[in-house]
Amino acid sequence: MPNKLAQPTSENRLIRLLKRRHPAKGARIKKGIGDDAAVIHPKSAKELWLITTDMLVETIDFNRDWTTPGQLGRKSISVNLSDLAAMGARPRFFTVSLAIPPAITEQWILGFHDGLTEKGEAFGAHLVGGDLSRSKACIVISVTAIGESLNRKVLYRSGAKAGDCLYVTGMLGRSAAGLKRLKDGHVPRRLRSQEEALQAHLDPEPRCDAGLWLAQSGLVHCMMDLSDGLSVDLPRLCDASGVGAEIYAPDLPVFPGSALWDCDPVDLALHGGEDFELLFAVPGSKSRLLENTYPATLSRITRIGVMTADAGNVWIVGQNRRKGRRRLPQRGYDHFKAGRH
Amino acid sequence: MPNKLAQPTSENRLIRLLKRRHPAKGARIKKGIGDDAAVIHPKSAKELWLITTDMLVETIDFNRDWTTPGQLGRKSISVNLSDLAAMGARPRFFTVSLAIPPAITEQWILGFHDGLTEKGEAFGAHLVGGDLSRSKACIVISVTAIGESLNRKVLYRSGAKAGDCLYVTGMLGRSAAGLKRLKDGHVPRRLRSQEEALQAHLDPEPRCDAGLWLAQSGLVHCMMDLSDGLSVDLPRLCDASGVGAEIYAPDLPVFPGSALWDCDPVDLALHGGEDFELLFAVPGSKSRLLENTYPATLSRITRIGVMTADAGNVWIVGQNRRKGRRRLPQRGYDHFKAGRH
Repeated sequence: MPNKLAQPTSENRLIRLLKRRHPAKGARIKKGIGDDAAVIHPKSAKELWLITTDMLVETIDFNRDWTTPGQLGRKSISVNLSDLAAMGARPRFFTVSLAIPPAITEQWILGFHDGLTEKGEAFGAHLVGGDLSRSKACIVISVTAIGESLNRKVLYRSGAKAGDCLYVTGMLGRSAAGLKRLKDGHVPRRLRSQEEALQAHLDPEPRCDAGLWLAQSGLVHCMMDLSDGLSVDLPRLCDASGVGAEIYAPDLPVFPGSALWDCDPVDLALHGGEDFELLFAVPGSKSRLLENTYPATLSRITRIGVMTADAGNVWIVGQNRRKGRRRLPQRGYDHFKAGRH
Repeated sequence: MPNKLAQPTSENRLIRLLKRRHPAKGARIKKGIGDDAAVIHPKSAKELWLITTDMLVETIDFNRDWTTPGQLGRKSISVNLSDLAAMGARPRFFTVSLAIPPAITEQWILGFHDGLTEKGEAFGAHLVGGDLSRSKACIVISVTAIGESLNRKVLYRSGAKAGDCLYVTGMLGRSAAGLKRLKDGHVPRRLRSQEEALQAHLDPEPRCDAGLWLAQSGLVHCMMDLSDGLSVDLPRLCDASGVGAEIYAPDLPVFPGSALWDCDPVDLALHGGEDFELLFAVPGSKSRLLENTYPATLSRITRIGVMTADAGNVWIVGQNRRKGRRRLPQRGYDHFKAGRH
């Protein structure tokens, strides 16, 4: 029984409650609350439309001193583009709402919009509208992005089967390494790895091309993006699909640079948030074909584990010199547990 | 020349700057920044899609102590439905992003969503997704709503011609009267007029049916909704259309109840915000036809003035015992000048 008087303690729990109370009702809604984006089928339209929204709150999701307005604009649209990428959709349009405290200058607002539109347009998404509001203390940004399917092929979080191979694009833990560096204070940016980590955190690259290719390939059962960390997001994919998973720690595409500044690269890969890489499941029988046909020009993919019939349970194998398997604790990001910044 | 280092001093100015820097580019965008909603033409779709977004910030746009979570949810979707009404669109889908400080309970969040979805569904709009975020101090709500045209007939802010008759739906200044009552402190809710004013402020009714009828009628040149007050919104309609306007003060459908609590009903009708009524222009030759065919079941309409060739100038005639005309000062709401609450 939900304790209605309790303070919210988990984002997953709240979303579950809301999904149950407000199930998608319209005839043209193929998917409502609970995936990376909603999926709509407009009357007589050839393609499906996908809608996603994300809010970034100052001091919770970003720190004004660590980012330029342009970088913040770029990241604000990127987190939404990543949701569209996770469904295999092509970005088309977006709106932005911005609440700004009195200290923010007109130059800041224009710089923010420059970054926002530049990044959006690089991925085919055009700014079509917005709202400007005053706030007392902190900047709040809300972007809603709309994408379009190609040949109505979209991928959901559900659909994974026991025996599927689990893959990720790119590298895990790099953004968290960048955040750690920023939290540690103003370090001279000399190392290439440090630059790379800061870039991954401040201006992440959504995997739209990879997402589209994977959705079109017909080889993928399900997909989502990694925004809150593998240890939080993978259980969501398992829940949606009714399966479990086993991860192979030595196979994780970690960011080795973080070891230089006293981080455990595997720990960051498992629990660091905001990588905005894609996580997807491929039938075992098709994994070879996928690996052989996946274009080299796209963000590389790595097989990191397998889906199991052990519904709802996520295990990790072989970390710390292959001591056997252990349960993967959910230590990624939850808005209702702790702030990132 | 814009002073790029200046603090933003006007919402109009910022929107003008952003519109110029980021003109709508995509081939399927019929209207981008600068109207009540963006207008999109999806490939092979029979109808146009309209997108609008609004952000409500605690202490700026609302006061947590004056509203129930359900009322706040209802108002959050209503302000967006009003934008769709202003284009003549039928509401279809919406998303909500919500940033909440630690003091907010799960019960509050559920009550907010109940109001939100109940009001949305009453107008045909279904909640399809959202984002929940933590904030340090204040609640921030961002709703994005999507509507659909009927037979591709939509109305813009532009299109008014000199000689057009200017109309509004409903009553003006009632919401501002309610806000005044709330600011004055906790007054026992005995008077019917007081209840009506509080209702108009806390749970305004979007004019979707009237907007749809007016767009379908073929009798209307242009339309917008009144969110920041007639004296601020009418100049926006004039700017978009390249015309001027003259308002007849004695004809304004004021809210007489406000006189009971030391307000000037005409002053509130001119400068009070958040009425969410529709403002529209009709060719003089068709005004009689409009008045004769407009359904009695819809929110009543009142002719309040005329559009003139005196581009950009708005005059008011006959207030204070017809002393002649004077310029209408823009004293409505601007986010970058002062907070409402």
